[in-house]
Amino acid sequence: MGKQLEKSPLAPAEFPEMRGVPGVSLATASLGLKDDGRENLLVVSLQGGTTVAGTLTKSKTRSAPVDWCRKHLPLGEARGLIVNAGNANAFTGAAGNEAVEKCVEAVADQLACRPSRIFAASTGVIGEALPYEVIVGALPQAFTRMAESGPPSWQKAAGAIRTTDTFSKGASTTAQIGGTQVTISGIAKGSGMIAPDMATMLSFVFTDAKIPADVLSELTRAGVEKSYNAITVDSDTSTSDTVLVFATGAADGQIEVSGADDPALEDFAAKLDALMLDLAQQVVRDGEGASKFISVTVTGAEDRAAARTIALSIANSPLVKTAIAGEDANWGRIIMAIGKSGEAADRDKVAIRIGGIDVALRGLAVPGYDETPVAEHLKGQNVDIEADVGVGDGEATVWTCDLTHGYISINADYRS
Amino acid sequence: MGKQLEKSPLAPAEFPEMRGVPGVSLATASLGLKDDGRENLLVVSLQGGTTVAGTLTKSKTRSAPVDWCRKHLPLGEARGLIVNAGNANAFTGAAGNEAVEKCVEAVADQLACRPSRIFAASTGVIGEALPYEVIVGALPQAFTRMAESGPPSWQKAAGAIRTTDTFSKGASTTAQIGGTQVTISGIAKGSGMIAPDMATMLSFVFTDAKIPADVLSELTRAGVEKSYNAITVDSDTSTSDTVLVFATGAADGQIEVSGADDPALEDFAAKLDALMLDLAQQVVRDGEGASKFISVTVTGAEDRAAARTIALSIANSPLVKTAIAGEDANWGRIIMAIGKSGEAADRDKVAIRIGGIDVALRGLAVPGYDETPVAEHLKGQNVDIEADVGVGDGEATVWTCDLTHGYISINADYRS
Repeated sequence: MGKQLEKSPLAPAEFPEMRGVPGVSLATASLGLKDDGRENLLVVSLQGGTTVAGTLTKSKTRSAPVDWCRKHLPLGEARGLIVNAGNANAFTGAAGNEAVEKCVEAVADQLACRPSRIFAASTGVIGEALPYEVIVGALPQAFTRMAESGPPSWQKAAGAIRTTDTFSKGASTTAQIGGTQVTISGIAKGSGMIAPDMATMLSFVFTDAKIPADVLSELTRAGVEKSYNAITVDSDTSTSDTVLVFATGAADGQIEVSGADDPALEDFAAKLDALMLDLAQQVVRDGEGASKFISVTVTGAEDRAAARTIALSIANSPLVKTAIAGEDANWGRIIMAIGKSGEAADRDKVAIRIGGIDVALRGLAVPGYDETPVAEHLKGQNVDIEADVGVGDGEATVWTCDLTHGYISINADYRS
Repeated sequence: MGKQLEKSPLAPAEFPEMRGVPGVSLATASLGLKDDGRENLLVVSLQGGTTVAGTLTKSKTRSAPVDWCRKHLPLGEARGLIVNAGNANAFTGAAGNEAVEKCVEAVADQLACRPSRIFAASTGVIGEALPYEVIVGALPQAFTRMAESGPPSWQKAAGAIRTTDTFSKGASTTAQIGGTQVTISGIAKGSGMIAPDMATMLSFVFTDAKIPADVLSELTRAGVEKSYNAITVDSDTSTSDTVLVFATGAADGQIEVSGADDPALEDFAAKLDALMLDLAQQVVRDGEGASKFISVTVTGAEDRAAARTIALSIANSPLVKTAIAGEDANWGRIIMAIGKSGEAADRDKVAIRIGGIDVALRGLAVPGYDETPVAEHLKGQNVDIEADVGVGDGEATVWTCDLTHGYISINADYRS
């Protein structure tokens, strides 16, 4: 936060063009808690009738705002969102709960709604009291400046929720539901303390589609499983991981959908999945110290869950991640990571491809294996690892980054 | 291996004084596979009647020598041991099994015993064929030089099994069994690819006690659980982890023991446990890039297994390990690691001590918390973390090291 970090070499060239979402208004503000004067507060106003779904960290030491969301998500209704960066309001006891309440009550006052319709998230240092008076004090001005969401405010919103992120993360798309075009726009933050088991970071997605809360919840869970829960930077799960999806229903002429499996939702679900995957992959691209974006696909496992466990075992292995950082085609470490996963694998049928090139087949190095094309692939920014473990039909893909000196530099002296 | 690594700052001042073990003869040789001419072959001759017990890696992609030991450990009889460094003979298919057979047959020829009495281990690069002809060719000379074990040969034996180890690891002690003094001497290797689930490295322990194989097996399993299975460097489990304990029975005047719970074995079991813990901790002290030796004790967990899971979650967290490398009293990361373990913890009762100093109590930072003495503790080489999770009586201690630039340097370009 205070420290200037160089932009990740894996960052997209620029923040994407974002579409406004009818029914969603954004505002940002600086809490003035740091010298740099950076904006670190985001408030969102959502029109009446907005539904909400989400997934939250499974951590046993979750933050106070996660507890708040957990309590109110079942209602499925939202009117507002408040997010601050710099202080996670985690491990702050009863005072932490009180701080969330003060914040959401102040937002509810501004929006003239019940506090239970306001969602909250905090990210930053753990164990320090959240200075809620400062946040509450900053709200009136923020609401004054609030405007209908448009391209500039999305970028500011994505910027206001950053901590050690080196770039702002956003994605925007459109989808068809029964002949009506709807918009989906989302932002995310996260770069360290990223691992599956829920959601690995903060991400907020907004759409003007009209979707009942229970249907939205089903679509969200399915999307999270294939995106935020399929990325890992360092296997560490945060106390604060939160993904919230809001549907304002503001798009004109919409049909009523019957359920998550309604054929009318097919395109929307696919686009939502793709947008979540885009955001999740942006988080990996901002992995602390990352120099390579790594995709790990495991096939031939007992089932999908086993394939995912093996893929994460490879993706989280410090030895695999350092080998890739060193552009070393050390596939022995991939074998090691398959072995330690605990899932069934037939050692004598295992096959490994790096960059689409066979390096091992039927449990042996490929005869006459030439390392040159593999070494060439590893010099690039995108590294593809495929492993077939030879026991079944289960497959899964996860994404991660390499483990470099940059990760150590960022984490050995930055208090996050 | 080829690369010169600086000796770990956590290494003991010198290799310990080792006691010879009657019934055990050692020899080492250079296989000449590397330019450096370093000795990298160890052969051990054990007198007739020697019993053996061991624990092996649980990896699903285990090496050919691990398969060999797994097959022959149930017999409980040993006459010899052959260990090479530089090539793990892992992921080498049927050729790997054949290579082990050729090696153990050659040793069995020298010792005029059945091959099933010869145990084997290999450590080093995965996926390359073991040049067994070279090993077999080196054996006659090695056996010629074989002498009764004494102080110099233990150090050479410990040296011959090293890979990225920066110092040789040994420990030696005596114990009383029913009025007879017996000796226990052991060696170990390992510095990276270290994590529990069996044994995390190679370690060979020898005693002249007379102990039936089933009793030895029980004592070994108990000792491994509290030592080799309670250390972690980087959470990566090797394909080759092997701990073997040999009992020659050569000490004069021994009683027959009735079982592992025979009171006559109390001292021996305690000394064996302590020796294994000493060796295991030496492995942590040689953790790749380690600058701090970290002990993590968890209390108040549901049971011992839960306490161990939480302790390992803390000990394996890259964020905790980098914070300690940076001498940063960032206890929020400890909270995070407790939370992600998946085991029960009462967030509002969690207490954390660093270096014996309370930093958090009842789920909150200690009022008026002064970081100065904690920061002072973190400047030392030994760091103690204690966490009480407030739900039960389970406790466990594990040992690890910090995560530094040295780990990245060693692993990003060294093919191990």
